[in-house]
Amino acid sequence: MGGGVDYLALERNKAEFNVDAMKIVWAGSSHVLQVSERIAQLVASDPAFRKDNRPMLGRKELFKNTLRKATYAWKRITELRLNEEEASMLRTFVDEPAFTDLHWAMFVPAIKGQGTEEQQQKWLPLAQKMQIIGCYAQTELGHGSNVQGLETTATFDPKTDEFVIHSPTLTSSKWWPGGLGKVSTHAIVYARLIIDGQDYGVNGFIVQLRSLDDHLPLPGITVGDIGMKFGNGAYNTMDNGVLRFDNVRIPRDQMLMRISQVTREGKFVQSNVPRQLVYGTMVFVRQTIVAGASVALSRAVCIATRYSAVRRQFGSRNGGPETQVIDYKTQQARLFPLLASAYAFRFVGEWLNWLYTDVMQRLQAGDFSTLPEAHACTAGLKSVTTSVTADGIEECRKLCGGHGYLCSSGLPELFAAYVPTCTYEGDNVVLQLQVARHLIKTISQLGSGKKPVGTTAYLGRLEQLLQYHSDVQKAEEWLKPNVVLGAFEARAARKSVAVAQNLSKFSNPEEGFQELSADLVEAAVAHCQLIIVSKFIEKLQEDIPGKGVKQQLESLSSIYALSLLHKHLGDFLSTGCITPEQGDLANEQLRSLYSQVRPNAIALVDAFNHTDHYLGSVLGSYDGNVYPKLYAEAWKDPLNDSVVPDGYQEYIRPLLKQQLSNARL
Amino acid sequence: MGGGVDYLALERNKAEFNVDAMKIVWAGSSHVLQVSERIAQLVASDPAFRKDNRPMLGRKELFKNTLRKATYAWKRITELRLNEEEASMLRTFVDEPAFTDLHWAMFVPAIKGQGTEEQQQKWLPLAQKMQIIGCYAQTELGHGSNVQGLETTATFDPKTDEFVIHSPTLTSSKWWPGGLGKVSTHAIVYARLIIDGQDYGVNGFIVQLRSLDDHLPLPGITVGDIGMKFGNGAYNTMDNGVLRFDNVRIPRDQMLMRISQVTREGKFVQSNVPRQLVYGTMVFVRQTIVAGASVALSRAVCIATRYSAVRRQFGSRNGGPETQVIDYKTQQARLFPLLASAYAFRFVGEWLNWLYTDVMQRLQAGDFSTLPEAHACTAGLKSVTTSVTADGIEECRKLCGGHGYLCSSGLPELFAAYVPTCTYEGDNVVLQLQVARHLIKTISQLGSGKKPVGTTAYLGRLEQLLQYHSDVQKAEEWLKPNVVLGAFEARAARKSVAVAQNLSKFSNPEEGFQELSADLVEAAVAHCQLIIVSKFIEKLQEDIPGKGVKQQLESLSSIYALSLLHKHLGDFLSTGCITPEQGDLANEQLRSLYSQVRPNAIALVDAFNHTDHYLGSVLGSYDGNVYPKLYAEAWKDPLNDSVVPDGYQEYIRPLLKQQLSNARL
Repeated sequence: MGGGVDYLALERNKAEFNVDAMKIVWAGSSHVLQVSERIAQLVASDPAFRKDNRPMLGRKELFKNTLRKATYAWKRITELRLNEEEASMLRTFVDEPAFTDLHWAMFVPAIKGQGTEEQQQKWLPLAQKMQIIGCYAQTELGHGSNVQGLETTATFDPKTDEFVIHSPTLTSSKWWPGGLGKVSTHAIVYARLIIDGQDYGVNGFIVQLRSLDDHLPLPGITVGDIGMKFGNGAYNTMDNGVLRFDNVRIPRDQMLMRISQVTREGKFVQSNVPRQLVYGTMVFVRQTIVAGASVALSRAVCIATRYSAVRRQFGSRNGGPETQVIDYKTQQARLFPLLASAYAFRFVGEWLNWLYTDVMQRLQAGDFSTLPEAHACTAGLKSVTTSVTADGIEECRKLCGGHGYLCSSGLPELFAAYVPTCTYEGDNVVLQLQVARHLIKTISQLGSGKKPVGTTAYLGRLEQLLQYHSDVQKAEEWLKPNVVLGAFEARAARKSVAVAQNLSKFSNPEEGFQELSADLVEAAVAHCQLIIVSKFIEKLQEDIPGKGVKQQLESLSSIYALSLLHKHLGDFLSTGCITPEQGDLANEQLRSLYSQVRPNAIALVDAFNHTDHYLGSVLGSYDGNVYPKLYAEAWKDPLNDSVVPDGYQEYIRPLLKQQLSNARL
Repeated sequence: MGGGVDYLALERNKAEFNVDAMKIVWAGSSHVLQVSERIAQLVASDPAFRKDNRPMLGRKELFKNTLRKATYAWKRITELRLNEEEASMLRTFVDEPAFTDLHWAMFVPAIKGQGTEEQQQKWLPLAQKMQIIGCYAQTELGHGSNVQGLETTATFDPKTDEFVIHSPTLTSSKWWPGGLGKVSTHAIVYARLIIDGQDYGVNGFIVQLRSLDDHLPLPGITVGDIGMKFGNGAYNTMDNGVLRFDNVRIPRDQMLMRISQVTREGKFVQSNVPRQLVYGTMVFVRQTIVAGASVALSRAVCIATRYSAVRRQFGSRNGGPETQVIDYKTQQARLFPLLASAYAFRFVGEWLNWLYTDVMQRLQAGDFSTLPEAHACTAGLKSVTTSVTADGIEECRKLCGGHGYLCSSGLPELFAAYVPTCTYEGDNVVLQLQVARHLIKTISQLGSGKKPVGTTAYLGRLEQLLQYHSDVQKAEEWLKPNVVLGAFEARAARKSVAVAQNLSKFSNPEEGFQELSADLVEAAVAHCQLIIVSKFIEKLQEDIPGKGVKQQLESLSSIYALSLLHKHLGDFLSTGCITPEQGDLANEQLRSLYSQVRPNAIALVDAFNHTDHYLGSVLGSYDGNVYPKLYAEAWKDPLNDSVVPDGYQEYIRPLLKQQLSNARL
């Protein structure tokens, strides 16, 4: 982690647990830890991957620089013969959104998942060598969440055995796909399949966009970049694009035909491959997003924690140093729940990984029984973890005071690059409504004896949960897993039951669902928080080696649960799960947990094992030597290239000299 | 508001109140409405003030462009002989942070407030003609909130009758002052006054930084820009600066001597001007910030509301159009409380304006009795309104779905430019701790018969408030002002009393204050929310002309209060002010209020009277013709200057052609 003095050494000495053992827990295994450490260092030590200058570049320079880095990354991946795991880590540590992300994460998997054997044999080798570059063109200017509302058409022409891809309206323009604007040679285009005037709904098509000779758009194709997005660098390194088709023809075999097919005669045929497999992919993508949330949050928390230990404000006694900001309870009460959330999301992500494997095995065995529950659960967890992470990054920025506003803190870019996660792959509110629908359905089926499965299993004990009253009498009792689980289960169950009862008052169920949707979202959130709390607790049932490691995780698990309880106290009280006095005891316990975590805080963020390069933050640097670095960063700004700024002669001087009347402005 | 078709005309026809009358209410008077409309149009219609291209500019271009605009603005102000009110509005509508902001809002007022008559006569004419440009150099690299911790020194040298300004450490570097980095010729520098080895604390000094001939820094001065900040344009148009002094000498008469003086002999003398006048200035500045919060929030709400009426998703029946997003209850439950907050902050800002006048009149009459309460109240309101506004802008961005992430939505820039408000002029958490300290003191003095004043007057009825139980039995009862006030007063009082009781358990009060600081912040927030609720209700006691105007404001006032009640339900329940059933009734009433506001939503944001130029948002444009504008904006990005991007030959082509081994990367 670099040489020199360690200004946080004192803090590191305070730790009461084995940091190296915790690193393995965080990474998931010593194998992953080793590989990720090796790849992270590979990136960090290569000047070609420098990223500190990013915020100062204009759009064109920024984009060109990303083209260079993404291409160079691919060159290194092939030269070093990295395997898929290593290659994916390398792209992660390069930490710059690029066209290659979409190629590997959307284009290739779409062909694998939706293409026939033949199609895979034709297209995958090209894609895997990057002889073609692909993107995923689904969203349209006027159509985001509602995929069934897409307007682009793919009309079968039996005369030529082709599909005619067309953009009939302005709002049908493809809009947002990353990699589309300037780079991709091909796209998976989602369009309404029209045969003989009949609409067969939305299907995927492989469409070539640009010539492989000169990169010019093919005839009938209008394509470009959609312009600047939030943040200085962030997603402006990506060519999110706009795409219009003017009757573009593609051969029939470029419709992705694993699930549905169009025959030479123009007959629409469903294959015997279960459509549910698509949901399996969705579970996979969302699991990746949840894991990503824990990483993004851990970066922000690491920066804010380290800087809070370096920074001092007020409280100087007898001319001595001021108090470390991390010692303030207001700082702890905002920071430590986020630290705990990063760990909580890590473990629920790990569990989702298992869930994905389980679901896929069942699907392949023709067992679709757990799919609705798994689908709802991943939707809800994607929503909760990304919302908390987006807000949490901004909270960490505020926790760094004024300096958090500087790009050199790394936090503005982290935020700007992260927030779209709340919208893409399912808007977070729309997703919670899906969860709520599943919960209401589960409850309505209880009477008919259908046993709820997986994360909804607790609803099978509804009678008992409706009777529940917490029996906590002392603050420490809130440390017991069963006490916490009892309260969270009862709260979640009662929130769902209450809204189900209100729904039953409506004669039109859909109208009721719409009218009560805000309450439904709250019930869904309560359910998802229960899942995360319970998966953290389950994790602690495992054998976790390393001195003091499990104790630290127990504290974090308690902080996660009790800070949520405090934040949503209204839920717990209004449903009668706990009394106001028990709420006060939980809060008291929380304060004491903050004191327990305090000496371990720096070591707990060290366990994330982020390199300084990956963090990209002067405030979060490992050695804590913040101020000289901040000072040095400032002088790198282009404005400091000259002492007297460009514009002095034209504007400032005439102003000062009262000669504006003749100035050209 | 521009010609052409009005795509929101249907929405505007639904309004049940007189929009023009509401515009006057929002503006504060017909005079202000007229002036602001005239100045806003002046700016909007002048192509020199164009701002849509801002996010695409590199730092140097961006900054130079701001120099041009700020200078041109000053030229127009003098040409048109605008008065102070008009000039300030013009700068507001130009909507681009610039060195002139600090010159007018900090440098000039500091000389007025802290300079002697003589100093004012010498410096003000120069500053008012902009023959010198000044900034306000207080914050240091290592010292923000704690002004008493500043390290820069001003040592009196009796031999030469000068002060020697010096930066003794790296952390003493001045850091952040706007206008400092590249433009200001002078600064008010805050430094520790040292006379004969003794430290007399922090005082202000007028220091010349740059030559008026060639703009070069004077000897001993190191000055530059501190680098990129959050956002594309945002505060990157401002030269926030770093400044170091190497024994820089200034004449003795450049210490601001209205309050404290140093004589020729080096004697430190306090004048008979009350130091409390400084707090008067603080009340003024914070009142401005609260008014600014209402404007910033109103811009975000206006954009999100208009786009929510244009945008449609899901719910298409029989192939008809999809549902307007604004009709979804989840959208309303997030958007309408923010709409209500914008109005609430407007009225509490208006009241703060009155409070400032009242305080200043009292101060000049030697009456300091209301100052602590006024000081605490403005601190708390600054904190609450800016925090809600910052979060609210981001919430509005999310409410616009994916397109809110585009700079052309205006929301990313609005957010990035707004968030520092949560940190400057008092960190929002530090400020709430000041409020809490005042509340605890007020409560502790109740026994000694000291009657609480102003916004704390309700604490004089503590006995009664501790007995309070809401008697609401029907949802509509929550519309009664007294019902709402009763609950909010009881909640605020009990939160304060509870934490005061917990504090009394500590033998060391400061230790208790530190340990319970998170609870203290909660009590302070409850108090501030009560102030805003009660000032909204007071506003409704006034005679408000215009068909339906008062009714709309009543709905918004109820939405503001009841959405807070729902959000902080835990407070109301744990203090026993209301029952869970009453909480449910409030929620039910809230839903019905949303339905009442829905048809008026567009007209309620029209009443803010923002021009399309000032909003700077394709999504929020007055005519609602969103999609063609979004599409047109995209093509303006520099990346679209060429069809094949710069970098194709070097990077993309070798990648596709499998010729990376020889490529220069």
